[in-house]
Order: sequence, then structure tokens, then C-alpha cells
Amino acid sequence: MRPLRVALFGFGTVGSSVARILVESNPEGLQLTHIFNRGISRKRVDWVPPTVKWSEDAEAVLGSDADVVVELAGGLDPAGTWVRRALEAGKSVVTANKKLIAYHGVELERLAAAKGGHLKYGAAVAGGIPVIPGLEQGLAGDRIQRIEGILNGTCNFILSKMEGGADYSAVLAEAQAKGYAEADPTEDVGGFDARAKLAILMRLAMRVVVDPEEIVPKPITAVAALDFSYARDLSCTIRQVARAEQTGGTVAAAVGPMLVDQHSPLAWSRGTENMVILTGHYGGDVVFSGHGAGGHPTAVAVVSDLVALAHGSRRVEIPSVPARIGAEFEVPHYIRFLVRDRPGIVAEITGALAKERINIRAIVQKPGYPADALPFVVTVEPCKSSALKRALTEIGKMDCLLEQPLDLQMLE
Amino acid sequence: MRPLRVALFGFGTVGSSVARILVESNPEGLQLTHIFNRGISRKRVDWVPPTVKWSEDAEAVLGSDADVVVELAGGLDPAGTWVRRALEAGKSVVTANKKLIAYHGVELERLAAAKGGHLKYGAAVAGGIPVIPGLEQGLAGDRIQRIEGILNGTCNFILSKMEGGADYSAVLAEAQAKGYAEADPTEDVGGFDARAKLAILMRLAMRVVVDPEEIVPKPITAVAALDFSYARDLSCTIRQVARAEQTGGTVAAAVGPMLVDQHSPLAWSRGTENMVILTGHYGGDVVFSGHGAGGHPTAVAVVSDLVALAHGSRRVEIPSVPARIGAEFEVPHYIRFLVRDRPGIVAEITGALAKERINIRAIVQKPGYPADALPFVVTVEPCKSSALKRALTEIGKMDCLLEQPLDLQMLE
Repeated sequence: MRPLRVALFGFGTVGSSVARILVESNPEGLQLTHIFNRGISRKRVDWVPPTVKWSEDAEAVLGSDADVVVELAGGLDPAGTWVRRALEAGKSVVTANKKLIAYHGVELERLAAAKGGHLKYGAAVAGGIPVIPGLEQGLAGDRIQRIEGILNGTCNFILSKMEGGADYSAVLAEAQAKGYAEADPTEDVGGFDARAKLAILMRLAMRVVVDPEEIVPKPITAVAALDFSYARDLSCTIRQVARAEQTGGTVAAAVGPMLVDQHSPLAWSRGTENMVILTGHYGGDVVFSGHGAGGHPTAVAVVSDLVALAHGSRRVEIPSVPARIGAEFEVPHYIRFLVRDRPGIVAEITGALAKERINIRAIVQKPGYPADALPFVVTVEPCKSSALKRALTEIGKMDCLLEQPLDLQMLE
Repeated sequence: MRPLRVALFGFGTVGSSVARILVESNPEGLQLTHIFNRGISRKRVDWVPPTVKWSEDAEAVLGSDADVVVELAGGLDPAGTWVRRALEAGKSVVTANKKLIAYHGVELERLAAAKGGHLKYGAAVAGGIPVIPGLEQGLAGDRIQRIEGILNGTCNFILSKMEGGADYSAVLAEAQAKGYAEADPTEDVGGFDARAKLAILMRLAMRVVVDPEEIVPKPITAVAALDFSYARDLSCTIRQVARAEQTGGTVAAAVGPMLVDQHSPLAWSRGTENMVILTGHYGGDVVFSGHGAGGHPTAVAVVSDLVALAHGSRRVEIPSVPARIGAEFEVPHYIRFLVRDRPGIVAEITGALAKERINIRAIVQKPGYPADALPFVVTVEPCKSSALKRALTEIGKMDCLLEQPLDLQMLE
């Protein structure tokens, strides 16, 4: 059998790592034949064999005899057009594009099946950590009821550095200098990247197709240095967590900075690490962790998908049904207030919470802050997000508040 | 397409969990048709549909129209005969039998390929944790250079309880009462179970076929309560670790109790948990953890293999070559001596180590022990196992030694 002919779309960090592994390891049944990128003159490298065609013409490569298109451009467009064109032509596609798969995965899988090609996206979630293959091939026999993940390396780098005392803007600048964060970091710090990944995991693990836009992420920029100090007093730290829960027929999902216990696996992940905890009805917790991003780890996932295609291994197509994010988490919360001090504040706040039948777990006010900008923290027992939201809207009207309270879920 | 007809061989803890999941979840494309066990009269349960045939006649079930045999009897025989018979007949086989796969996996895979069936054994290593699917489908694009695993839940239960102060025989009795340990615990505590699993991982991760017998395991019974106390002083704890390393063309492998840093992931695993850390040339460390044993988690892996078969997903057959365990680890060691005290002991011991050019890292002698049965610990910098063995043979001749020194590898 002749090897699968591989066309690479995108020769950035991940693309050049994929080429590097294909050239160095030379996996059986695969041959790199095309590299598409804009401005190839500044991309060309001497370690790629001369048989590989470099091209700036996407249409020409899509119309070539390549069997597999590896799409590493990212974003919905033009990547989506290329992927559709390739699948229409009966080619297979391997992609690391979480956004495309989160928004159009079901449609693209149908297209692939109709045209006889295959769509694989093991690199779309948690890069080099085989969560997607693990789910499809090793956990399909379970019913996954809960997902908790650290799915964005940039946020984890920033928050684990802030935990050590660093300042947000300094760490962001460091992350940008190291190539961990984009010039415009909104996708990452705003939680949009993590929610796309969560939507993909929900489909494979919980078998529900959700609209990612229904998950409203909370940006990590809402967290201040003092929150880490309060979190520490509560034996916790802060991580950007993507979580989902399926109970009965409904699903809940949330993405944002959350308090995690210092002894939980989520607190162990440092730097750009990713971690996913899946809780199955039968098998209990399974934890995956490792390097979720970066050229080489992501490239390993891409090449592994290619190797699977070359070996004729097909995806386990897990059936899924459309679902709304209709459920609420019922979890404890950390609420941090910043007030101009005056008598009666705690009474008013606790009164508003009591009105919604929300029980207080702890009130922490650390010394050393000025009375005209005084932070303090209230943690509450598990309650419905909607009830807490009503209470916080009420509290938000208080004249002493210098800013809207910061409300973070706590994981237990 | 008619569903795959599934015959279950073995209706113990795992077998009944597999049946339970098949009945409750009713995965598409699978139908439980036969249950084989000895003494079915005491095994029969009312929740299995009446269409399922119970049988005490292995030959009759092997000769039936079942498409897949699920082998959960364990051990080399008669399980091996059943698996061969099923594959010869062109059936597929799903098994959790680590011993059979470690000793005869390559031969059985060849047989399956020749006869058109499939052999899947995702449950053979780390039960419910998808390490094998992760390796085959998600890490095949990498070159795995190091494996470190906690692969035996029984040993981990015993050692993590001993870490908390419990006595070996009391914990073993508890493990036996809870069904975590066999009446004869030799397979587990002797390290034979873990070495079979390590041999399987080495084949899939490092692509080498090794004879499991070449890995000489050290039993965890060599560890005493006082070793945990010394380990703690060294910021470590003790776990049964299975490790392998590939450098250049040679492999090293070892199984036994080892010192692990309190801050390493291996130290976090408690109770019957399993954990596997794979270090790839390109992707770095990937950590898998969860419930490695028990009926339900292992059954999830078995049912996931069945689901993959039903979806026509084939294993990625990773090519492997025979190899000898020809390399040595060059790692630090913990050596605990038990002596009748007299002047000059430390000088003689350190002299013997120096003769082999082994550098001492620390000498720890805790107060409170009697002079006629005095334990103390020497840790040494990374050295070849063979050099240390020569030094310990020399030291072993000293008249003051009450027992042969305990030598444990330290993981860094």
C-alpha cells in the first residue's frame, strides 16, 4: 500500500513541529508531500526533504493528490473552508482547531462520513495529553457525569505565577514574550478558548451537543492579587477551570477562575500544564495531565492522529444529541467585596444572602487594608447560582461598594 | 448490521460488572449472548436477560455463534487455550489478562491478524485508566523514553497505609478482607503482576518485546515501618514503582518498592489508585491516574474495547522488536542497614562504596533505637546498579550486619 500523502496547512510553531516529527521519525505509512503557508519564502527550512512541495496557493494544494489535510491555521475562516473543501473531495482531515470543532464538529463529521474521509482532532483539546483518544477508545463504556479541566495553558501560567506573588500585567507580558500568550490575549484570558474545548469534551464525554456561546465565561482578569491571599487563608488557590456536570437529562457548564483546594489535583498543575478530570458513573475519577500546548506536544497529538489513519484505525463515533445548558451548579462560592467601611455592612450583606436562604460558611477579613478600600470575603455553602445572583444584585446596590463583588465558584 | 454477539468467560467481580454495564447501558451494536463460568448455579443472577445462555461448557461457547469472547478468567491456562481457540475460529477477543498478554501478546496478535479477528486488552494495564488506548491512539506520534508507574493497586493500598503508620500484616489482612488482595498475595506484593503490566507498556510505548522474566522484581515485604520514617526525613515516601527507560538502543526495567519525592505525582496516589507517567521525546510528561483495579473500572475498559469493536475501530498496531533488558539505571539509591553497633561501621561501609566510586549523598541515623539492632540509612548519588551491587556484596560480609542491607532506588 502506498503511504498516505500529507498536506500541511500552516507552518507556524505546531506545523513545523509536525513536519519535524514526520521527517525525523518517518512513521510507517505517512509521507509529507505539501506545505501550504502564506509567505513561504520566509518559512522555508532546509531540513524538509526536497520532494515536499511548498505552496502559497490553498486551492492548488486542496486540488492535489494529497490524502490527508492537516489544518493548523486555526479560527473559523478560512480554515473552515479548507476543511470543508478537503472533506468534500473525500480527503481526510486532521486538525487542532478547537473553535472549528466546537462550533461545526457535528456537521463536519457528517460530511466526512458522507464522503468517505475521516476527521480527527485529538490535538484540539489538551494538546499532547490524549484525552480525546482516551475518551473515545477507553471510556466509551462509561457514562461520564462530570468534567473538570484546566484547559488553557496561558491562564494557568498566569494564575500559577500570580499565586507565587507576581502581578497580572507583568506575568502577561512574560507569557507574551515566551510565546504562551497572543498580543491580544482575550481568547485565552477571557475564557473563550477554554469554553470551546469544554464544548468538545462535553460532546465526547457526555454525548451532548451544546452551543459554546451558551457558556458565558468569566475572565481571569477579574481576579486580584489579594484574592490569592484570601484563597490561601481558605487552604485554596485559584485556577481557570472549565467544568460541566450532567445530572438526569440536563447539563450545567461554566468557565472561569475558581477556587480549588490546595490538595486537589487541579492545584498541582503549574505553568502551562493542562489537566482534565473525568468522573464516570462506573469507573470513578480518571485524571489526565501534561503539556497541553506548545509546538511539540500538540504536534504529537496531530502525528498520532495521522498514524492512526495510516493504520486504518477509525474513530469511535460516539452518538450525541443536542442539548441546552439548562442546569445550574449547586456549589459553594467565594465572594469578595471591596467597600468603603461603615457600620452595618456585614449585617446588610448577610441579610441579603439570608433572604435567598443561602448559608454562610465563613467570613474572612484580613487586617492591614485601609478603611476606605476594605476587602473582605464571604464564602457560602452550596447554593443555586441563580439564587446567589439575585442576592448579589441586591447587594450590588449598596452605597458602600467600591466595585461589584467578585463571585467565584469553589470546587470541592 | 446485526449487533456483535458477546460471550463472557468468567462471571466474577469484573465479569459481572461487564454484564451489568452491558445490560444497563445497552451500548449500540453489542449484545450479551453467553456467560461461561464454573458452577453457574451459584453465579446466576436475575438481572441478566433470559436470552443470555449460561454455560459450564467452554467448548460449547467457543463453538457458538458468538462474535467476541471476553476472557476474564486470568492466568495463562486455561485462559490462553480459550483465547487461542476463539481467535483460531476468527472471533475477536477482549481480555483483561495481563499475564497472557505480557507473555504471549505478540503471538496472539499475529494469530488474530491471520484469522481476521481482533485482540483488544485495554483493561490489562491500569484497569479503568485509558493508558493503552492513550498510547496507541494519542501518543503513537511520540517516542516514549521513560515509563514510571504505580501499576498494582494492592501494593499501593498497603504502602500508602503503612506510610500512615499501619503494620504490614494488619494492612494485608484488611486488603484481603476488602477483596483488594488474594489469599496468596505473592503475585501482587512480589511484584509479578506489576512486571507483566510493565512489559505490556514497554511494548506499546517503547516498541520493544521483552521477556517479563528478565525483570526481577523486589517484593514490597522487604520494606519495614522504620523505612517510612527514614523516607519521611528525606522528604520522600515509598511506593511500589514499575519503571523502564530507553536510551539509545538499550532498555532498563525494574519493579519494586522505591523512594519517591513527597512532591512527585507518584506520592499523591493513595489507596488502590494507579498512576502512569510517560515521558516522550517530543511531548514531555503525560500523567494518567485513577482507579486501576476493581470490578467497575476494569469493566469500563472492557466495555470500551467492545464499543470500539462494534464501531469498527481497529487497534493501531504499533510495530515492535524483541529486546533484552540490557541497560542499567543510573539513579540514586537508599540503603538501609541494620547493625549491632561497634566502632568503625560507617568507615567500613563508606570505604566499600568509595572503592566502587560511589558518592554518598546523606547518612541518617535517627536516635531512639537500641545499639544491638541499630538501623541507619545511607543515600548515594546516581550510580550504576552493578557497581552498587558489588559494594553491597562486600558490605554484606561484615560481621556487624544483622540482615542484608535494603537497597531501594530513588526517583527524582
